[in-house]
Amino acid sequence: MSQLLHIDFSLRHEESVSRQLTARYANRWKAAHPDGTVVYRDYGSEPVPHLSPAGAEVKFVPPADHTPAQAAAYAIGTGLNADVAAADTVVLGVPLYNYGPPSAIKAWIDNLVIGGVSHDPATQESLLGDTELVVLAVKGGAYGEGTPREGWDHFEPWFSHVTSTIGLTPHYIRSEMTLAHTVPALFEFQDIANASRTEAEAEIDALWTPEPVA
Amino acid sequence: MSQLLHIDFSLRHEESVSRQLTARYANRWKAAHPDGTVVYRDYGSEPVPHLSPAGAEVKFVPPADHTPAQAAAYAIGTGLNADVAAADTVVLGVPLYNYGPPSAIKAWIDNLVIGGVSHDPATQESLLGDTELVVLAVKGGAYGEGTPREGWDHFEPWFSHVTSTIGLTPHYIRSEMTLAHTVPALFEFQDIANASRTEAEAEIDALWTPEPVA
Repeated sequence: MSQLLHIDFSLRHEESVSRQLTARYANRWKAAHPDGTVVYRDYGSEPVPHLSPAGAEVKFVPPADHTPAQAAAYAIGTGLNADVAAADTVVLGVPLYNYGPPSAIKAWIDNLVIGGVSHDPATQESLLGDTELVVLAVKGGAYGEGTPREGWDHFEPWFSHVTSTIGLTPHYIRSEMTLAHTVPALFEFQDIANASRTEAEAEIDALWTPEPVA
Repeated sequence: MSQLLHIDFSLRHEESVSRQLTARYANRWKAAHPDGTVVYRDYGSEPVPHLSPAGAEVKFVPPADHTPAQAAAYAIGTGLNADVAAADTVVLGVPLYNYGPPSAIKAWIDNLVIGGVSHDPATQESLLGDTELVVLAVKGGAYGEGTPREGWDHFEPWFSHVTSTIGLTPHYIRSEMTLAHTVPALFEFQDIANASRTEAEAEIDALWTPEPVA
């Protein structure tokens, strides 16, 4: 049986483009995996806590020797790892806030990355199985080559680097310039926003062959 | 009267190099400003909370119309802004975790950046006064030109970009390769670590002319 781990990081709800896109992804996945299970985490509303001082120590202390604070932090980390290990595919909805990742996804990574649990520290190979990682990366502006803020997307370069150290390779599906519908100074870019969104939706839909009609 | 805002983000305590360096900075600052005040925040131990869904809305709603949740989030943000506005100098101790900023400094920024409070959204000029921003940036590895992980420091490029949008310009003082004293694979780089630390300390000490001897 297949399992999808669906995580949203957006602080917004109905109007969140990243939530709309992960929902579209999850619906398509369910149609293609009628016996599959979807596990859902809303880390926009209920974020993973910041890594604690005790959490920063757990990878250096054998679990049997953990203090109560270390054991509590380790339980958070191993729980996050179990979610990923149980999934065949992880889909993340990640908006860009202040030119970087939401603090909740940094906290998710900081609690997740534990040598000997998430990955083999000697080889950087994943201990979480052959997990597919899909990121619906949504940006209020545009950061591609030739744009005035080229290089200001500080989420994707970091996330590709850090996930490579635990043996995962993110596949990004992007929707850019989403603020063009709400910020007057960006109204002129609504066509770009719409085209980017349409392209993201088409990319999601193309991931699965349609179910044959009976 | 001068004021220094001293913030630590490290999850470690006595053994934290960034805490040792911010303490050295604060001591030198106090010696040079005998009538000055130091305000201290330990956001490693007591982090700023993740920006909440209500906190993401506050800049779009006039304060008089805030819901209780928005008002609570706004109070966090305006409190952080008041700390910076009251300071002539802000010194931050920032370790690199998993190749990025600690989630607590991302949360600090996400709560701090409020158009009309931290900065004029039309001009990006600071509303916090002429604040000097010093960052003691401590890294377990080395990320400079020609190193195997050149480009993997995802804190500084992001932080320079985001602070420029609120009219601040960080001055970085760096101490690299601090893990060379604890990670066997990096033992061979202890000389580099020591030289980098010595250079950071010398740079701190050189910021003030010594008090004249009476």
